[in-house]
Amino acid sequence: MIGIFDSGVGGLTVVKKIQERLPNLSFIYLGDNIRAPYGNYSREVIIRYAEENINFLIAHGATIIIVACNTVSALAGGYLKNKYRVPIFEVITPTIEAVAMIGSKRIGVIGTRATIASGVYQKMLEKNNYKIDVFNQSCPLFVPLIEENWIRYPETKMITRRYLTPFKKNNIDSLILGCTHYPLLKKIIQDRVGKRVYLIDPAESIVETLSKHLDKQTYVDYSGREEYFITDINGRFQEIGNRWLGKLIKIKRAEL
Amino acid sequence: MIGIFDSGVGGLTVVKKIQERLPNLSFIYLGDNIRAPYGNYSREVIIRYAEENINFLIAHGATIIIVACNTVSALAGGYLKNKYRVPIFEVITPTIEAVAMIGSKRIGVIGTRATIASGVYQKMLEKNNYKIDVFNQSCPLFVPLIEENWIRYPETKMITRRYLTPFKKNNIDSLILGCTHYPLLKKIIQDRVGKRVYLIDPAESIVETLSKHLDKQTYVDYSGREEYFITDINGRFQEIGNRWLGKLIKIKRAEL
Repeated sequence: MIGIFDSGVGGLTVVKKIQERLPNLSFIYLGDNIRAPYGNYSREVIIRYAEENINFLIAHGATIIIVACNTVSALAGGYLKNKYRVPIFEVITPTIEAVAMIGSKRIGVIGTRATIASGVYQKMLEKNNYKIDVFNQSCPLFVPLIEENWIRYPETKMITRRYLTPFKKNNIDSLILGCTHYPLLKKIIQDRVGKRVYLIDPAESIVETLSKHLDKQTYVDYSGREEYFITDINGRFQEIGNRWLGKLIKIKRAEL
Repeated sequence: MIGIFDSGVGGLTVVKKIQERLPNLSFIYLGDNIRAPYGNYSREVIIRYAEENINFLIAHGATIIIVACNTVSALAGGYLKNKYRVPIFEVITPTIEAVAMIGSKRIGVIGTRATIASGVYQKMLEKNNYKIDVFNQSCPLFVPLIEENWIRYPETKMITRRYLTPFKKNNIDSLILGCTHYPLLKKIIQDRVGKRVYLIDPAESIVETLSKHLDKQTYVDYSGREEYFITDINGRFQEIGNRWLGKLIKIKRAEL
């Protein structure tokens, strides 16, 4: 049983990739929207919240955990992998592998304030001895714009321009979408940075890694069971969830 | 001793009004930025957080509480006033008094999703038998734009236009800034709705009410003591605080 958590709706981009790549894989999703966004919290707080999320998922039968949140992955990924016995997949490691695979030389990274401040991508690339120039930009308005469903509005284009134009002079060849919400802005982001820049989607990377892991397992539950929990019931998660996943999802309240 | 709390930096607009109107009044400020913004939470969560904030302030010597957050005031103001013995001032009641004083007939209200969904202003006006037409608009992007310090950017103007243009056809005579962050956008908001629309600033209203209350007290501490606590130390609160208040403020970490 797969357990997936995020600070809110962002992790649903991972769910969507699972549906495309691994149809009928059973999973339980937890969106800790009551405390979202995680992007401005300090490391110790993020660790505390991540542990509460993981404990909830394990208590509900998860035997594999997917950290579908870049902020948690960036600030607490290593810590959590050491602490728990169940396999934990976070979005940073597969993203670094994707960077290696495409052979990027000059890469841009966008994310929340916490992810960018952590410098995690730069550190991970250095650790793996990749000779690569990294250019960072935090984009704290992207998540609320997506949550407003203003994706096609000119303001979103202008804000995207403001955040991403500095990358033009950096002459990047690829860009890490360092937040699980950002794939929703993929088209606008691609238009801004240009067709020649390769967009690295963390949802794709993590589902690729998960798929390889599941290939080695003897029993995987493909009975298509899906459970969605959130920590604060409100209409927006329902609305965004239905729209992104193209179907009516049934949501329950989680007490952490 | 005055205790002031808000979900983050917004309540500093109340602090600024206190400095102008009641200089040297001693106070303790608590910004629960670790869980900010409060605007999307459900009522039961907001009550729990508000109680933790108030208990912290009382434990640190507060004998008067100012709820410098419209969301808490809207969803939990009455409940909190009943529960605690210390006087609790919230921003809704004095704002309703301000509406009565200016004799508004057609009023707009802007605020977070939670404040607008609560319909608190409409209910309070009806309860007081004011014959008045109320027009509502939630503006969830305003707080992150202010926190980015993008107040003078064209995107902020465009987003303001998108949120406020519907008020034009409503022919409002006044507008309640139903979030303590919004006074920071006062100029842009005034430009958009037109000079003839009177802006009702909750910070002004609550400090006016506080001032009247203090006039009746035998002892008020005007020794100029100021303490600032936040639940998650980060550079942004410091930066925004210094800029808004025009001085270097000293911030401590609060454990709720």
